[in-house]
Amino acid sequence: MMESHIKRQLVIIGGAEDKDGDSVILRDFVRRAGGTKAHIVILTAATELPREVGENYIRVFERLGAENTRIIDTETREDASSSTALEAISKATGIFFTGGDQARITSILKDTEIDVAIHKRFSEGIVIAGTSAGAAVMPDKMIVEGDSQTHPRIETVEMGPGMGFLPGVVIDQHFSQRGRLGRLISALILEPAVLGFGIDENTAMVVTDNQIEVIGEGAVTIVDESEATYNNMGEILKDESLAICGAKLHILPHGFKFDLKTRQPILNNVAVPVASINA
Amino acid sequence: MMESHIKRQLVIIGGAEDKDGDSVILRDFVRRAGGTKAHIVILTAATELPREVGENYIRVFERLGAENTRIIDTETREDASSSTALEAISKATGIFFTGGDQARITSILKDTEIDVAIHKRFSEGIVIAGTSAGAAVMPDKMIVEGDSQTHPRIETVEMGPGMGFLPGVVIDQHFSQRGRLGRLISALILEPAVLGFGIDENTAMVVTDNQIEVIGEGAVTIVDESEATYNNMGEILKDESLAICGAKLHILPHGFKFDLKTRQPILNNVAVPVASINA
Repeated sequence: MMESHIKRQLVIIGGAEDKDGDSVILRDFVRRAGGTKAHIVILTAATELPREVGENYIRVFERLGAENTRIIDTETREDASSSTALEAISKATGIFFTGGDQARITSILKDTEIDVAIHKRFSEGIVIAGTSAGAAVMPDKMIVEGDSQTHPRIETVEMGPGMGFLPGVVIDQHFSQRGRLGRLISALILEPAVLGFGIDENTAMVVTDNQIEVIGEGAVTIVDESEATYNNMGEILKDESLAICGAKLHILPHGFKFDLKTRQPILNNVAVPVASINA
Repeated sequence: MMESHIKRQLVIIGGAEDKDGDSVILRDFVRRAGGTKAHIVILTAATELPREVGENYIRVFERLGAENTRIIDTETREDASSSTALEAISKATGIFFTGGDQARITSILKDTEIDVAIHKRFSEGIVIAGTSAGAAVMPDKMIVEGDSQTHPRIETVEMGPGMGFLPGVVIDQHFSQRGRLGRLISALILEPAVLGFGIDENTAMVVTDNQIEVIGEGAVTIVDESEATYNNMGEILKDESLAICGAKLHILPHGFKFDLKTRQPILNNVAVPVASINA
């Protein structure tokens, strides 16, 4: 952990991660944060029940041995510039964004002093994690809200700025459980992100520099829109249906890896160009 | 309609099609069956409420002007060889499979005299339609049952023989509404079908020979598994998760067409090879 060559570490969780059993995902986060020596900050900006949600995570992290865990709750943008908050972030070796409403995270935190401080620690190599709403905010463009269980439509999603830890992608959470393929595709067509990640519940994509590893119970569904040969975005009116042709689809469960630069799954630890595997 | 060069006509409906409004899908079926001169047979084998379900369709078809509409209910395989049933099929210009349980359709009808008679009429060019369970039975291999809202797993689906009107594909229904991407992918990996079709509610794929046109409110999601470069089917145990890499994904709403032979969407009425559109 924290070697100087690691540029970024993210644990992006699709929501409803196991907190009482093996806690594979939260365990990975705590290990990356420094294990029993971790200094973890739980950011509860997303939720209107900060005490309840935050203490639930303190319980898990302390069970795993991370005694130095604290909640920073920010109800307002002023809170997000308090010296207490800034000092906690400056010492943090792991930062955890809880679930709730992703629009609360960006409206309270984005472009505040705490945002700058978090990005500084992130660039220094500490791990940032987020679950559900905390996962949605990871890219520079995020799904603010949208409809589940529908086909792609312009009106299916509302997009907005995210926290920018993982630019150039779109992330959706509770993916299989809430039937969000249409919502993810809508987001990909509306914004020029080339990669869409749909993360299942109790599942995480762990980003280390440009490599993603999937851990947990479900899968990560990856849609590569850069491979798409056609969409009808330029031709339709607001209440009409979106079409997409030729997008590439990968569905990766626990243990599978993906290279963000080549946009290819890594099989046998080698990122294999798609065309050559079939031969 | 019924020109000698038409080899097959199918209206495959994702369930919950509009019966009270414009009824775009059922209207298309009735038109293909001969309009006001149609002889329509409603097959209620799938449902345990044949009278109720069947009469609901009679009401719609008669509203659209198809006066010669009758229900053939088959509770047993003996029913499926009755002279009444066979005579109705021999005169039918359109046959409609209702929803219910797809396993009832195949267990009652498959390889009976009525099955042979339906296939004979189908090969003569009459239109066959099916909704929900009636859509699932269209291929030679069908999804008998399975879990929705989950990632791909071997145990997600149970496959079985279908009625064989559209071989070489797998069809799932209520697709976006029930979050069935994982189920469709599981079916595609378990069976050697190269094309998977997920049909939304109140949406149909209309097959004319080798061309598909999407009609209705939602979309048809097409996964081309022949483009996939890897899956882990040969490597995993029964309760583990399936992976797939490099499948091709098309999502086509109303008015879009797809060529079953080239496995490409047809844009501007020309089936364009995927690689050349981007250039």
